[in-house]
Amino acid sequence: MSNPAYERLVQRHLRMHRLGHLQSIAAWDQSAFMPPKGNDARAAALAEVGGLLHEMGTAPELKTWLDEAAAEPLSDFERDSLREMRRAWDARNALPPSLVEAISLATSHCEHAWRTQRPANDWSGFLPNLKEVVRLQREMASRLSEAQGLSKYDALLDRYEPGMRSADIDRVFGDLRQWLPSLIQRVMVKQSTEAVLRPEGPFPKSAQRELGLAAMQLMGFDFEAGRLDESAHPFCGGVPEDVRMTTRYREDDCLPALMGVIHETGHGRYEQNLPREWLGLPVAEARSMGIHESQSLSFEMQLGSHPGFARQLAPLLQRHLGAQPAFEADNLHQLLTRVKPGYIRVDADEVTYPAHVILRYEIERALIEGEIECEDIPALWHAKMTELLGLSTEGNYTNGCMQDVHWSAGLFGYFPCYTLGAMYAAQWFATMRREMPDLDDRIARGDLIPVFDWLKAKVWSQGSRRSTPELVQRASGEPLNPAHFRAHLEARYL
Amino acid sequence: MSNPAYERLVQRHLRMHRLGHLQSIAAWDQSAFMPPKGNDARAAALAEVGGLLHEMGTAPELKTWLDEAAAEPLSDFERDSLREMRRAWDARNALPPSLVEAISLATSHCEHAWRTQRPANDWSGFLPNLKEVVRLQREMASRLSEAQGLSKYDALLDRYEPGMRSADIDRVFGDLRQWLPSLIQRVMVKQSTEAVLRPEGPFPKSAQRELGLAAMQLMGFDFEAGRLDESAHPFCGGVPEDVRMTTRYREDDCLPALMGVIHETGHGRYEQNLPREWLGLPVAEARSMGIHESQSLSFEMQLGSHPGFARQLAPLLQRHLGAQPAFEADNLHQLLTRVKPGYIRVDADEVTYPAHVILRYEIERALIEGEIECEDIPALWHAKMTELLGLSTEGNYTNGCMQDVHWSAGLFGYFPCYTLGAMYAAQWFATMRREMPDLDDRIARGDLIPVFDWLKAKVWSQGSRRSTPELVQRASGEPLNPAHFRAHLEARYL
Ligand SMILES: [Zn+2]
Ligand SMILES: [Zn+2]
Repeated sequence: MSNPAYERLVQRHLRMHRLGHLQSIAAWDQSAFMPPKGNDARAAALAEVGGLLHEMGTAPELKTWLDEAAAEPLSDFERDSLREMRRAWDARNALPPSLVEAISLATSHCEHAWRTQRPANDWSGFLPNLKEVVRLQREMASRLSEAQGLSKYDALLDRYEPGMRSADIDRVFGDLRQWLPSLIQRVMVKQSTEAVLRPEGPFPKSAQRELGLAAMQLMGFDFEAGRLDESAHPFCGGVPEDVRMTTRYREDDCLPALMGVIHETGHGRYEQNLPREWLGLPVAEARSMGIHESQSLSFEMQLGSHPGFARQLAPLLQRHLGAQPAFEADNLHQLLTRVKPGYIRVDADEVTYPAHVILRYEIERALIEGEIECEDIPALWHAKMTELLGLSTEGNYTNGCMQDVHWSAGLFGYFPCYTLGAMYAAQWFATMRREMPDLDDRIARGDLIPVFDWLKAKVWSQGSRRSTPELVQRASGEPLNPAHFRAHLEARYL
Repeated sequence: MSNPAYERLVQRHLRMHRLGHLQSIAAWDQSAFMPPKGNDARAAALAEVGGLLHEMGTAPELKTWLDEAAAEPLSDFERDSLREMRRAWDARNALPPSLVEAISLATSHCEHAWRTQRPANDWSGFLPNLKEVVRLQREMASRLSEAQGLSKYDALLDRYEPGMRSADIDRVFGDLRQWLPSLIQRVMVKQSTEAVLRPEGPFPKSAQRELGLAAMQLMGFDFEAGRLDESAHPFCGGVPEDVRMTTRYREDDCLPALMGVIHETGHGRYEQNLPREWLGLPVAEARSMGIHESQSLSFEMQLGSHPGFARQLAPLLQRHLGAQPAFEADNLHQLLTRVKPGYIRVDADEVTYPAHVILRYEIERALIEGEIECEDIPALWHAKMTELLGLSTEGNYTNGCMQDVHWSAGLFGYFPCYTLGAMYAAQWFATMRREMPDLDDRIARGDLIPVFDWLKAKVWSQGSRRSTPELVQRASGEPLNPAHFRAHLEARYL
């Protein structure tokens, strides 16, 4: 072994990967199958392995090995791998355990209370809890910012989208902000004259499940290396070697589960196609939150809501749920591209969704940088909703600033990734169209292999070998460019 | 804390219990849900946590704490608890790691080859692998026997049925051997004049699953603390807080899955009702293999095949699979009590089953004590099958001495527990009848609470607080007595 320190790091990470496997599967089971009385024992078991992994990941010898390995004659790949090991080490070791514990207590307290405060529209009950969460997030941001030489908000953002800075986001969201509200208005006017048929239910769960499985098949999911089950909150979990997707079904509407499954299949195929030969090392993990979302949105939006793709989906719907006029390809495409400003981010369409994210980004950045206080949130929320989507949220906390769990859970810096993902996805497809001029015809013919091959080559198989900006540059030949997202929306909706 | 060493032992065992939880759930998932390509990663993850648990359970400080705790002013309960901790420690530390590894290699090699050798009737291919397994089992038995002052076979038996000795088994199996063959003959003669209707299928899986769930409900299974799923080899796994039972379905026959589910429910309720306040300590675990089987056989045989119980099962079958004459209570009872000597242990009825176990016990005891060699097995098997069941296995290895996986897997000392369980179960019900003279009427009325309450008080809630002989004495007022099993069989079958 010519690089003993690097080799030791590899062995330690493989060991953590194997224990993390059990953690992931047990967490999936907790959401998908566990009966209620199992919860206390499961929580204790997950905390135990979580503590163990933290111990292994913060052990002092790791730091020694990281320093020693830096002086070893590593290959280019090993050097990238070492960079990601150090990144993971920094993330685990940057904060004093007392702060980590305080954050964990404050967020679980805030989140727990939020579950009843939100339906009760109880902002004044929620406010002190949120203030405590924000106080601790600011403290965390200060510490990380000092260690990394970043602004406070950037230090949080970097945890979810490494290398991304608020200056970049200001640039791309600033661009978006200029044309999005008027685009929404124009699309609304255009669509106001279109008659669209709603599917008539009920749609039994078992038929919807079969439909979802058929869609996953169409999208190339490897069923020998993963499953689809049910849970209250859909997610894509498990491990790269065995991906566990979940969805939930509404018997009165068949499209949310179907499009949800297609979305999660994008996450799932990314995980299934991460580089095998490095599996277990940080460098083999998915690059970032935004890049992950660029895959789910490539599947759900770029492909799933493509006018040609509706010709692939329509026969599946007819086969599994019975034929009805609403399931004709053209009507189906119209259903999947309805645009309507609404209060709720998670229910938003492709065009209005970024408005929800811009609003949250502007508020949370100012909050973390200390430019505003929690008390200012409702007024800002109302003002920005009015400005961006023409909706008032005065006095409406339930469907206003209390709608999402993210802030209660301390996930500041996470929201921008949703819209970054949408923009990356548009950029991927713009690049593919440049390289394959007949791409849209192929999609309409159901020939999706070129799309999957491209994503696999440019994104999936790369793991975390490159930083996000470098990955974007290599894949598309340019940095993140909001013009592609704009062109995509205008082409599809105008 | 007045007993610091004992307290440290408690904390260590609770920690192992929490990690063991993840191991159990991941192992269950591997059998019930895991897609094939997940297997390598799962095997590596299970090996990792298995190694970690072994490390924690053989750590030298544990030995120090065990010795120190013995001198602490423990309560009676703590003393029992300490005894079981020491028992678990001895079991993990008695063998040198090199022998453990050699056994693991030899058994997995033998078992793997057996999977194809058995259907090919390939005794000569199997023999050298088995000889290596037996050689290592003898070495293990020698070491354990020296450490514990037991005979070689008793040292192996003690791993599955603590406190049980081959002298005891000789006594009870010797008794059985005298009357069993003639009892089988008399039952066969009696049943030869009875006309029994076979159920007519097919029986869809989904309906059989609903039937199984209804039977579990009838048997008091707590669905808030457990589940029923499918696997190739039915088992009862998971953890006491969250019991994971599995079964398999044959569409042409509905009784195997139903009775299998009832059997596993007995195992499951034992686990669900282990003492909660000590959970995680060895003293809270199920007492032994034989006692565990006494619960599954209490459910499957004592209750499940009780003539009165057929009146409870019949309406369930009719409701879930449709009414047919074979599902009338009397005919159902006859179906569940058919006696017919056969080659295969796992397919045997309640009356002929002990013959299969006696045969294996006699051969494996002689093998481990060095009185015979592996080459002698087929002739002995044939002679004993002829003697006990009137069946020749000359040249038939597939359905003769190669039918079970136990010996390939190195499970010498395990077979007797099946019949010990049947005898314990008969003794439990004899005791209940003495204490509750109207027991059989209650069972026929579907009033099963007294049975469950008795089992809970005398067995489930006891965990491993007492040795098996002490548990039997306390529960039934006498040592294991084969007369109860005989009386049970004669009353039910003659
Ligand atoms: Zn997503
Ligand atoms: Zn059993």
